[in-house]
Formats: sequence, structure tokens, C-alpha cells
Amino acid sequence: MGVGGPGGLYGKVYILRLGHRPQRDKRITSHVALVARAFGANGFILEGVCDEAVERTIDRISRCWGGKLYYRCGVDGVRFIEEWRRGGGQVIHLTMYGVPLREVLGEVKSSPSPKLVVVGAEKVDPIYYRVSDYNVSIGTQPHSEVAALAILLDRLLDGAWERMEFPDARLRIIPSPRGKHVIGDC
Amino acid sequence: MGVGGPGGLYGKVYILRLGHRPQRDKRITSHVALVARAFGANGFILEGVCDEAVERTIDRISRCWGGKLYYRCGVDGVRFIEEWRRGGGQVIHLTMYGVPLREVLGEVKSSPSPKLVVVGAEKVDPIYYRVSDYNVSIGTQPHSEVAALAILLDRLLDGAWERMEFPDARLRIIPSPRGKHVIGDC
Repeated sequence: MGVGGPGGLYGKVYILRLGHRPQRDKRITSHVALVARAFGANGFILEGVCDEAVERTIDRISRCWGGKLYYRCGVDGVRFIEEWRRGGGQVIHLTMYGVPLREVLGEVKSSPSPKLVVVGAEKVDPIYYRVSDYNVSIGTQPHSEVAALAILLDRLLDGAWERMEFPDARLRIIPSPRGKHVIGDC
Repeated sequence: MGVGGPGGLYGKVYILRLGHRPQRDKRITSHVALVARAFGANGFILEGVCDEAVERTIDRISRCWGGKLYYRCGVDGVRFIEEWRRGGGQVIHLTMYGVPLREVLGEVKSSPSPKLVVVGAEKVDPIYYRVSDYNVSIGTQPHSEVAALAILLDRLLDGAWERMEFPDARLRIIPSPRGKHVIGDC
């Protein structure tokens, strides 16, 4: 059974990060990308710009911990979303102003369409509220796009993060009640 | 019924952030603090240093969106943990090297003790693995302390983030399938 269970979403979830400002956002955006990978998404796409710092983080983590997170950058966000939808994909925009996740989760999960999860930075152009299929909130309080993405992927992929393993990993953790136990070398 | 349900954890969960470096970490640490607030924790404590940027973010969000997140900074982390435990509290250190959350969640939730959740930055002194009651992982892949805290609080407080409301809020969101609907002024 693939990660994501009977719903078969594994292999079909991508993240589009909007509004990244290279110096200011490099660490938050890197956390978004690492959550994408560790919580079971398959790709990470950076809108508008490219950023070597983010790309280096993804490369370094993937080299040591395995997996191949698809990465693209500098895309036109609206065009990317429109093409995604024309290709039969669904678009879920995470925003604190949207409808509660529980109201749409069943509908989203029951569709076999590939999912594009859109994650904004501080300011998001109003057009993204119109071109997305769903505007979804993870609570109605301001918090963090990193947390919002983690909760969405947790619910969408049925806690895939609990069992993520990458066959080509050079490093693996042996869970330990005290201290660090890592096997491998990288 | 308080947030957190019959377990009665509401009012008893605090976050201790370790290893904050003011310039480099101000945004990640601010996200940790905002997740603490939005996911139902009661306080946020910064180890080692104080940082006006983090404090300003907490103040600004609390002023507009309500709630009183207890805040303290510049504490000695080990001493704080030892005092917490002497006072009957439990200490849960989030680390990718720890035991899976599901293995200890029942035990942690069944205890009425106040919880201190310890959230590290990149390097954590080995002593924290010894002075904590639990070293707990949110998956065994590297990702983000922001995401790890969100998932922990989600499980510990039974999805309190879905129903967080602050009585003194100046701003409130009316969930909307398209666009932004905010009432109030701040």
C-alpha cells in the first residue's frame, strides 16, 4: 500500500510556494520545502524567483536522507495553476481566510486528481483566491505557513509522516528515548 | 468544556524555545510562538536570550487577535526544566531522534501534569536529552520545529486549533470560500 493509503494520493501532491523573497524568507521557505518532503509530498515549486539557498538545503537533505523531491523555480504562479487545472489537477490554496479544512477534506480526498497545494508568504495577490479550487484554512488565527502545510499534509495523506522512509537514504535514525542514534554516513 | 476536552490540558501547556539566535532565527522563532498561541498553548519562553523582534510579533498578534500568551525570555533552559519538573510538571523535548509520538502520547495525555514542550534550534546541547521526561519525534526525517510543534499540539490538545477563539479579539475572520472577510479593526 502506498503512503496515503487506499485513497492512493501518493505520487500526486505538489507544493507551490508563492511570494518568496530570497534573503528574508530563505529559512521559512526551506522549512516549507522540508515539510513537503517529510510529510509525503512529491514536489516543491517556487513561484517568481529561484533561490540557491533553498535549493542547496533540499539537495543536502535529499542526498543524506534520501528521496527525490521534484524541484522547480521561477514559475509564473497563475499560469502554473491554470495549467495544473487544465491537466485535471486540483488546487488547494492555504489561507487563514478560507473555509475550515474539515469542510472540504472529504471532497478533496475522494477525488483522484493530483493536488497542488498553494502556500503563500505574507502578502498573496487576490487572484490566487480566484484561480484555486479551494481556499482552505488551518484555523482562523494567524500562525505559520509551515504549520499549516504540515497539518494539511497530515490530514490529506493520513499521517504519512509517521512512516516516511526513503529507500536510497544514507542516514537513518533509530528512535531512542535518550540521545541520538543514527546509522549510516553522509 | 475547555479546549483540550475532557483531558483538561487547557491552561497547562507551555513552550520552551532553545538556542535562538536573534538575527538568524527571528522569523522561525516567531512562527514557533504564533503556533504556540494558535494551537492552544498558554505560554512561550525563550531560552538564553531576549529578542525584541519576537516579542513585538507576539504583542502585535495578541493585541489584534486576542489572547494573552505568557512570555518570558533569557531563562537558563536547564534550570527552568528542572524547576518545572520539581513543581510536578512534565517535559517533552521534540527531537527527530526521539521515540515516535504515538508511543508516548497516551501516557503523556493521561497525566494531569502541566506540560513543557521543549523546541530546539539546529544544535541542541545533549543535556536536554537527559533532563527531559520524554524525547519525542514527529517522524524520523529532518523537517521543521514549527511543523513538529504544530503536530504535537494538534495531537496533545485534540485539534484545539480548529476551535481557538479569543474573547478579547479585535479582529475575527469569517471563513470564506473566496477572498477575505475580516470583521473588526486593529
